[in-house]
Amino acid sequence: MIKTDILIIGAGPTGLFTVFEAGLLKLKCHLIDALPQAGGQCSEIYPKKPIYDIPAFPEILAGDLVDNLMKQIAPFQPGFTLGERAETIEKLDDGTFIVTTSKGTKHHAPIVAIAGGLGSFEPRKPPIPKIANYEDKGVEYIIRDPELYRNKRVIISGGGDSALDWSIFLADVAESVVLIHRRNEFRGALDSVEKVQELKDIGKIELITPAEVIEIIGKEKVQAVTIKRGEDEFDRACDHFIPLFGLAPKLGPIADWGLEIEKNAIKVDNSLDYMTNIPGIYAIGDVNTYPGKLKLILCGFHEATLMCQSAFQRIYPEKRYVMKYTTVGGVEGFDGTKKEAPKAVIKSIT
Amino acid sequence: MIKTDILIIGAGPTGLFTVFEAGLLKLKCHLIDALPQAGGQCSEIYPKKPIYDIPAFPEILAGDLVDNLMKQIAPFQPGFTLGERAETIEKLDDGTFIVTTSKGTKHHAPIVAIAGGLGSFEPRKPPIPKIANYEDKGVEYIIRDPELYRNKRVIISGGGDSALDWSIFLADVAESVVLIHRRNEFRGALDSVEKVQELKDIGKIELITPAEVIEIIGKEKVQAVTIKRGEDEFDRACDHFIPLFGLAPKLGPIADWGLEIEKNAIKVDNSLDYMTNIPGIYAIGDVNTYPGKLKLILCGFHEATLMCQSAFQRIYPEKRYVMKYTTVGGVEGFDGTKKEAPKAVIKSIT
Repeated sequence: MIKTDILIIGAGPTGLFTVFEAGLLKLKCHLIDALPQAGGQCSEIYPKKPIYDIPAFPEILAGDLVDNLMKQIAPFQPGFTLGERAETIEKLDDGTFIVTTSKGTKHHAPIVAIAGGLGSFEPRKPPIPKIANYEDKGVEYIIRDPELYRNKRVIISGGGDSALDWSIFLADVAESVVLIHRRNEFRGALDSVEKVQELKDIGKIELITPAEVIEIIGKEKVQAVTIKRGEDEFDRACDHFIPLFGLAPKLGPIADWGLEIEKNAIKVDNSLDYMTNIPGIYAIGDVNTYPGKLKLILCGFHEATLMCQSAFQRIYPEKRYVMKYTTVGGVEGFDGTKKEAPKAVIKSIT
Repeated sequence: MIKTDILIIGAGPTGLFTVFEAGLLKLKCHLIDALPQAGGQCSEIYPKKPIYDIPAFPEILAGDLVDNLMKQIAPFQPGFTLGERAETIEKLDDGTFIVTTSKGTKHHAPIVAIAGGLGSFEPRKPPIPKIANYEDKGVEYIIRDPELYRNKRVIISGGGDSALDWSIFLADVAESVVLIHRRNEFRGALDSVEKVQELKDIGKIELITPAEVIEIIGKEKVQAVTIKRGEDEFDRACDHFIPLFGLAPKLGPIADWGLEIEKNAIKVDNSLDYMTNIPGIYAIGDVNTYPGKLKLILCGFHEATLMCQSAFQRIYPEKRYVMKYTTVGGVEGFDGTKKEAPKAVIKSIT
């Protein structure tokens, strides 16, 4: 059982910054995310796209935003349960919660902060018969660890950035890469399209277009797929079939936790501490809704900050917290590090 | 008469970021600040001190924060009335406002956003008889333009960073610099204290300690000051006497605008749009108060953002604004510039 002060569901920018604000209050955090890495959409969907409305960054790539946040929170040593979806929640008699993930990992905390963004990103699955039987047996919808594909025969399906970028990456890792798309045209960054063209020209990626995979063949695991191009149907042997048709956010199991839901978002009673209808459970960032709500990262940062103050009061009802500016008080990490402004000296001039 | 959509009182971080969020809504902004430059406290009081709790900046100097914000808002061409304090406000029959500064500059806008921080920073004045008669006639409490002192005889009084740093700076500009302090010990950054020692040793700064100025001599303007050191009293000729005893924030004339005030801050009805008791006047950042308020820069950013949406609805009640993410829609400046994410291409691979 993983124990922490604030259990954060969702490791996007809002969830990550929560660790910092909680850390200033000496509260420990642990984050759960269905994606294999921290950063939410910023890492998974658009790491190389610029964001222009993060305060004091005239421009920052989404991936760099996440890197900066990870650096900022590092002194507070957050724990992570990644690649697992928060599935069920149980409220104990003492008011604390146990959250169990899709893989059965259990987490225990007095406070749960749902920073779930638009929900957990679930892959769009192609309508291929019995594909579910091959999941994690050669069929993967998200690439969690590229090393899994070293010296393997890989077939990727899709026509967007994800299919292009992973084909390029795996061309150097896998024994062979076949890219299948139902059109001749790909939609993605110009660089990526051109790079795939180049790798195709030198024989490092094989392209089969316009075509689609219509069947998976294999006893225990994937051994081949059946491909349909025009009227032709043919089999192609492979170790992995990776359909990359994008991710769609779903509120998922959280929708059944007894929280008030409105338009696919979690209602918070007020915008003063962003608590939900269940005391001890907060909702911050894009996942919550209140009158005038804006789904902006900078709003999530503010919500996380106010939420941590409220969480502190719930955990330590008898303590009175006096806020200290970081410029004045510095930042004391749980790892023993301390950052602080250079102190003024008092010194004679003679 | 200066006309704008949102008249912002206070050019600190919150006021500056308001320009950006207003700009995304095609609203123009003009800022008034009593200090001679933008940035509020961050520029005037602690430009070289690090802040650790700006999201996605593990560490940023206050001065750099202001520089970044100025860069971010530049495409929206804000106007500035600096070195003038917002003094009076008048509500016209059509619900718009006229704000007049201490120097009589008039501004007209349908929306007033008070982003006044802890108030306008007023210098602490030494208790020297008739000093008020010499203000702007050789006595300055804030250095607005260092060129004023070129080839002049300057006497600075004070023992902190401001007195040290300006003595160092003016040593290269003025004909002579005398630094007077009532103790031998100075309190400031080690660098600054050491630099003053060095400049004193080579005769570029004259130190008179422990001493204080007890009288100002001059008919129309400052011609000399009387200095008391121990039992000694003596006069010293000079063109400028600059007492740098720090700045203290005062809510100032805003306190008489008919706004609900609580503990030296402006009450906002709710934390949904941060409007005050006077429709059309908002209060954002450190200057406002509501239950759970935290005086943090990051909260000011959020408040500015929600406030701009509400301002837009007041100005254009008939329009429905649909928020576009900057990553998707880019940022279109009023100066004709456009920043946007590189677009995806749709391209065949042959």
